[in-house]
Amino acid sequence: MKVMSFLQCMACGYQADLLLERHFRCPECNSLFDVCHNIKHQEAWRWQDAFDRMLVSPMSVSGVWRFKPWIMPGLASRDVVTLGEGNVPIVPAGKKLCDWIGGELDLWLMLEGKGPTGSFKDFGMSVLVSVAKAAGINHLACISTGDTSAALAAYCAAAGIACTVILPLGKITDEQILQVKMFGATVILVPGSFDDCIPILNVLVSEYGVYPGNSLNPARIEGHQATVFLAAQFFGWQLPDWFVVPVGNGSNCSSIGKALRLMASQGFKVPTHILGCQSTAAAPLYRSWVRAGGPQATKELWQAAYRPVKVRSTIATAARIGNPVSWQKVVREVMSSHGAMALARESELRRAVEVCAHDGHFVCPQSGQAFAGLRQAVKKGLVKPGSRVVVVCTADGLKFNAPFIGNQSKRVITAGDCQPRTIAKILKLQRAA
Amino acid sequence: MKVMSFLQCMACGYQADLLLERHFRCPECNSLFDVCHNIKHQEAWRWQDAFDRMLVSPMSVSGVWRFKPWIMPGLASRDVVTLGEGNVPIVPAGKKLCDWIGGELDLWLMLEGKGPTGSFKDFGMSVLVSVAKAAGINHLACISTGDTSAALAAYCAAAGIACTVILPLGKITDEQILQVKMFGATVILVPGSFDDCIPILNVLVSEYGVYPGNSLNPARIEGHQATVFLAAQFFGWQLPDWFVVPVGNGSNCSSIGKALRLMASQGFKVPTHILGCQSTAAAPLYRSWVRAGGPQATKELWQAAYRPVKVRSTIATAARIGNPVSWQKVVREVMSSHGAMALARESELRRAVEVCAHDGHFVCPQSGQAFAGLRQAVKKGLVKPGSRVVVVCTADGLKFNAPFIGNQSKRVITAGDCQPRTIAKILKLQRAA
Repeated sequence: MKVMSFLQCMACGYQADLLLERHFRCPECNSLFDVCHNIKHQEAWRWQDAFDRMLVSPMSVSGVWRFKPWIMPGLASRDVVTLGEGNVPIVPAGKKLCDWIGGELDLWLMLEGKGPTGSFKDFGMSVLVSVAKAAGINHLACISTGDTSAALAAYCAAAGIACTVILPLGKITDEQILQVKMFGATVILVPGSFDDCIPILNVLVSEYGVYPGNSLNPARIEGHQATVFLAAQFFGWQLPDWFVVPVGNGSNCSSIGKALRLMASQGFKVPTHILGCQSTAAAPLYRSWVRAGGPQATKELWQAAYRPVKVRSTIATAARIGNPVSWQKVVREVMSSHGAMALARESELRRAVEVCAHDGHFVCPQSGQAFAGLRQAVKKGLVKPGSRVVVVCTADGLKFNAPFIGNQSKRVITAGDCQPRTIAKILKLQRAA
Repeated sequence: MKVMSFLQCMACGYQADLLLERHFRCPECNSLFDVCHNIKHQEAWRWQDAFDRMLVSPMSVSGVWRFKPWIMPGLASRDVVTLGEGNVPIVPAGKKLCDWIGGELDLWLMLEGKGPTGSFKDFGMSVLVSVAKAAGINHLACISTGDTSAALAAYCAAAGIACTVILPLGKITDEQILQVKMFGATVILVPGSFDDCIPILNVLVSEYGVYPGNSLNPARIEGHQATVFLAAQFFGWQLPDWFVVPVGNGSNCSSIGKALRLMASQGFKVPTHILGCQSTAAAPLYRSWVRAGGPQATKELWQAAYRPVKVRSTIATAARIGNPVSWQKVVREVMSSHGAMALARESELRRAVEVCAHDGHFVCPQSGQAFAGLRQAVKKGLVKPGSRVVVVCTADGLKFNAPFIGNQSKRVITAGDCQPRTIAKILKLQRAA
């Protein structure tokens, strides 16, 4: 493990031990780490053949760990913690969504909410908890009311490792921590705000040997790379022209870019661009990209233009982040893929979820953010007609249903009486011949 | 289609046209119909090879329609309505659940809640709506607050066919019809009870050309058969010793038995038994099986002993059915598989959900019913140690979270202050060396 994989600072190149590191910031320059692997080089067709054989091999449980030689090659099999993540549906977008987005795209949805805990976080948490297991950790912790804590709690349950979630007292509903509770994690409610929870977690990590499950930990990025590998395999090892993702803390852009670079280094043809989509409520990366020249931006100009923002209200709560942890990686990967950023207005991201549901897929508001961003990018001519586009739908709509429960719907109609004729009239039905 | 597939009464053999039938009861004897197909016969290994090749073929979206030659062989491809159903995770059960159930089983979970609308109903509804499309139907309807209406609404959305759900006014919460609303179906609320809704639907079907999406329609059973085909393929075409399912209206037992008989007729080795599990709140099939002699029951004795029951309260609401539509098919298939029935006590089925969640999988109470039933069957020696057992987990826990939201958990702890030392003490953490 130590020989195969290590940490390296993305800015200054400082190296650290993947199994010993706990803070996941470079001690020299405070930048983020990348996980680096010594992956053997072989011709692309050999990789294809190996991964395709695993697809039909019996009892192949995980769509993430199928790609272990690319994701965490040195990890011992006994340390792999899996809940059957990864093999999520990849489906053609329905007609209504295609029409709404426009651009005559070859549009596909990758439904990453159809996994163990209902969000894309499973991909990364499977790897993070596996690395923690390999490192001999016996306690993980995080601060989150959402998908992160649910995924961390589930994988800790599977691994038999203690898990604690620290949250502010009185600001959390029972619904928000339902999954965490069900998975048997300990929830500590502290008198204070979310910000008061952060130093607590830091001390538990520094002084008590607790391992952090948060976004700084780049092991998660390794697992999220499976998005690219799964899509490539699904399309017969032809990569799509675009991956479209919502941007919150930036793990999707970071992982997709890293995976594309890996495949290119192994001889695959990689024509793929990344489109990162932010909502008007929290668009630090979109706004700095625009300031840096938009489609003419360079990495240096964009980095220089980056500023955190104050967030506003949005139904895409999971991406409501004013200063994304992985912003530097987003810049690197969007630029490296010759990609772009796009902005989703609040009304449009809500409408996008509704339109997509009218095709039969109920996705989260963050997925709506990606659809609305794609629509803008199509209008601006950034995404060309005929392009094959994969939108990463990051969570199930059932996990983010609150904004829609109160929806007044013209389609809920109260009948005056129980007569079938009355109902038929409401439905404008004709008597059959 | 007409030539390849037809309806046949399971009791008297009366035949009917699959595309013209609307009432799905034999006009001669009022029994249920089976869908019958003229499936070509070929050696088992040829089927295996064909289905395994489809597993690696690009853009293979559906795990149900992969088995189209067995499920609806004559259906035109243009009539297939899919949302990417079927390819659900099959995972080894975790240690805590294995220990709780006992019997040293080779225990697997088939997580059918990880699909388009979050329940196993997707498997069947994909086929029902496809048949409706082939029949030229332009309006489907059902009465249900649960998984059935969500799945029907989603597939109608995908097909571009109108969908109506008829429900009693004032007895339905916004949460219950959220998915139906999102998928754009029309909800008609009528002043009255659930029972008042049934004749309305019947008249809409008889006189207004509306197509019923309810459990009587045996096209759904055809889609649910994919459970068996997917598991067989997953295990390298070795069928498990047992399929364990919760029994509500009986569609799981009906479809699994039919699929096992199909595979046997094609030369596959089929050592598989069905274990049907009911809760004490609604156990008409378990109780009549016991009255008929339990493990010594014959089909005739069981049929004679069958009586509907008055249902009691349970958290496994989706299986709270006193007179299952498909009870005759359950009897036929459980007996034909040399299977058995089992009873789940309320406290045990709830506990089963909690234990399973402590392994990282949050499943519905009906899945808990199956676990608790399996535990009883193990204790009684009906399921032998070492058996390979697949439990069909019929829905995602997120769809049935209400019984658990109020759960008082000892693991939710309020700290007296924000000091890391206080939190460490609560967590019984030692300062690292």
